[in-house]
Amino acid sequence: MDAISVIRTKRDRGELSDAQIDWVIDAYTRGEVADEQMSALAMAILLNGMNLREISRWTDAMIRSGVRMDFSSLPLPTSDKHSTGGVGDKITLPLAPLVAACGAAVPQLSGRGLGHTGGTLDKLESIPGWRALLSNEEMLDVLRNTGAVICAAGDGLAPADKKLYALRDVTGTVEAIPLIASSIMSKKIAEGTGSLVLDVKVGSGAFMKNLDDARELARTMVGLGTTAGVNTVALLTDMSTPLGLTAGNALEVRESLEVLAGGGPADVVELTVALAREMLAAAGVHGKDPAEALRDGSAMDHWRRMIAAQGGDVDAPLPVAREQHVIPAPASGVLTALDAYAVGVCAWRLGAGRARKEDPVQAGAGVEMHAKPGDTVVAGQPLLTLHTDTPERYDYAIEALAGGVEVAPAGTEFTPTPIILDRIA
Amino acid sequence: MDAISVIRTKRDRGELSDAQIDWVIDAYTRGEVADEQMSALAMAILLNGMNLREISRWTDAMIRSGVRMDFSSLPLPTSDKHSTGGVGDKITLPLAPLVAACGAAVPQLSGRGLGHTGGTLDKLESIPGWRALLSNEEMLDVLRNTGAVICAAGDGLAPADKKLYALRDVTGTVEAIPLIASSIMSKKIAEGTGSLVLDVKVGSGAFMKNLDDARELARTMVGLGTTAGVNTVALLTDMSTPLGLTAGNALEVRESLEVLAGGGPADVVELTVALAREMLAAAGVHGKDPAEALRDGSAMDHWRRMIAAQGGDVDAPLPVAREQHVIPAPASGVLTALDAYAVGVCAWRLGAGRARKEDPVQAGAGVEMHAKPGDTVVAGQPLLTLHTDTPERYDYAIEALAGGVEVAPAGTEFTPTPIILDRIA
Repeated sequence: MDAISVIRTKRDRGELSDAQIDWVIDAYTRGEVADEQMSALAMAILLNGMNLREISRWTDAMIRSGVRMDFSSLPLPTSDKHSTGGVGDKITLPLAPLVAACGAAVPQLSGRGLGHTGGTLDKLESIPGWRALLSNEEMLDVLRNTGAVICAAGDGLAPADKKLYALRDVTGTVEAIPLIASSIMSKKIAEGTGSLVLDVKVGSGAFMKNLDDARELARTMVGLGTTAGVNTVALLTDMSTPLGLTAGNALEVRESLEVLAGGGPADVVELTVALAREMLAAAGVHGKDPAEALRDGSAMDHWRRMIAAQGGDVDAPLPVAREQHVIPAPASGVLTALDAYAVGVCAWRLGAGRARKEDPVQAGAGVEMHAKPGDTVVAGQPLLTLHTDTPERYDYAIEALAGGVEVAPAGTEFTPTPIILDRIA
Repeated sequence: MDAISVIRTKRDRGELSDAQIDWVIDAYTRGEVADEQMSALAMAILLNGMNLREISRWTDAMIRSGVRMDFSSLPLPTSDKHSTGGVGDKITLPLAPLVAACGAAVPQLSGRGLGHTGGTLDKLESIPGWRALLSNEEMLDVLRNTGAVICAAGDGLAPADKKLYALRDVTGTVEAIPLIASSIMSKKIAEGTGSLVLDVKVGSGAFMKNLDDARELARTMVGLGTTAGVNTVALLTDMSTPLGLTAGNALEVRESLEVLAGGGPADVVELTVALAREMLAAAGVHGKDPAEALRDGSAMDHWRRMIAAQGGDVDAPLPVAREQHVIPAPASGVLTALDAYAVGVCAWRLGAGRARKEDPVQAGAGVEMHAKPGDTVVAGQPLLTLHTDTPERYDYAIEALAGGVEVAPAGTEFTPTPIILDRIA
């Protein structure tokens, strides 16, 4: 068995055998297959696909590359949520303490930013002192004491996926359904959650640009989860425009705090509550209303305990970028488009995301939106505020917005896309 | 500009802009674009192609990654030949001194064998004392004094290609026409030859298995050369069976000496003379008959001076392998197939080639053929003699021949494939 023959099989549109998949995942984990070989294979998989048997075996091989966690010692049922990634998608931040406040335990292993989409860990790391890296014992402790934990997957959990995820991020091989599905599900199955709600994003700012691809991804993942004994449900949700009014690390933490305080943008609140209901139902926890837990402060209490348990200073001011630059509305009328991908790339170029896996991110960088599609805007008034520590990148960041903002004459009919598009169980 | 957006452009079947190509080649040479990014791009190029503008710019960017040589101080026009690689392809050895004897200067930068195809430098290194590595000044001196030089390309010449070539070798991305064409032509244009004859091999022992692919490669390369001001012609030649009666390093030097002495196998002589005529015509040198220069000893004189100028002992005996093993003809009749790939892999396994670029080669190892397709053979009489210093590899080497030898009943009609299949100018 050798890397080149495995690469050639997929390059030439063949099916990978179980033995080829087991070998290549194991050899990549051990470093016998080099990064440059795996990235060529990933590109061949992206362009030539994998069938369900290949995806299932690939997922299983990644789980077997490491350990599996076990939460059966907890007194509460466990439920986790995974989003396929979008722009302004800070939902995990209010959601995990909210579900904990309602009686399910949330063991949330999260990731870092991938391409133009932000990463939950990058966002939380803008809180002074907060640590993403916990040992398995620490993770269980935080979960037992606060009902929720958001942290990086330990090195022992699907190490093959960890390596491959970082590699895909820098090699333009993120957008492949087989690789996305196996990456997500290998971590979630290995993590040991009892139930799982998938938030599959659809639209320009998501990896899945259309509903058909998103359905295929959702069905693939629900199938992988169910087969592995994890109660799995998927919501397909809109990502044609950013979620909420911020895209960036500290900016999104600030907005999450607004939601936990009972306020925040309507779309963020709607999706957070809908996902909380799905997670509680999947975990078999009934009788608690998540909307109420946002209003009565119990979700915020869980947030403060959870952040503090991981070293975060919950009262410290959040980092702010060195410079701000306002983009005015180009015309007066109704904002009919504020494209998620355009805003995501703009935020990424401002420093909120990374170009290479070793790059740092800027805590304060990102895009603040002063209107959402459907809102009335006035020419010359602030539409966006760009935040960055590296203002020399403004021109490059602003370029990303070209064609992403559309204003129609006042009075134009505009029906916003609903947040939740479909449900797959 | 960033690697991911360049990769995505090609992954999504777009055209790379001039600026993207210039940037990615320069950044890869400097190490800013990582190997794993370049291999993903190479796979995307292999699967999605490049148009002529892209290939031409890519070639140009690789040339600009290093220095360009200049032979304008020479009193003679220059001509070079490049073969895309085959089994038993020792043509460069007699060809370079032959063309020099007819009045054109031959600056021949050659490579080493990788995989089942042999390398000119490996062959010449079986001559005691001969050195492949020359400084630019030494190269010019040998060329000025003897009319021909065969040596390794210096580090300064198209360093981007050097890096990319090694990467493609281990990532299953060798077989991409745009990458093969730009790799060959960037080196040949940077080398500074005034004219160039390409020997594009077609058949089981070549990278191009069929005539259509070979024609596309040839047209691409002729276009690149012509655009760069190098008078370029291509011959498509057969590689379904090995050239001549030997495949191996010292074995092929011995056969080349027979050709330079006015003898040698008919196919080797035919191709050597045809390529010499093309090179002389491309260089604008008329009135000399290469066939006559083989008969009158002037080509041999040039060979002796050229080898001696690089430290080679022209009168020393050539190395011989420690052990020989005869393979008899399996039946009596007409030999209808002696497969180039099978013989190439057999010679490689005997020790004539290398699996990894750091491996040494055995000077004496290889395959000696006692018949060629069309010849009559008698069951039990020697068909092949295998040479090696490591006879423990005989079984593994012989396995490679399975299915590669076919004998039909005596009297069966057999039309051998012509050596020269097409000419593209």
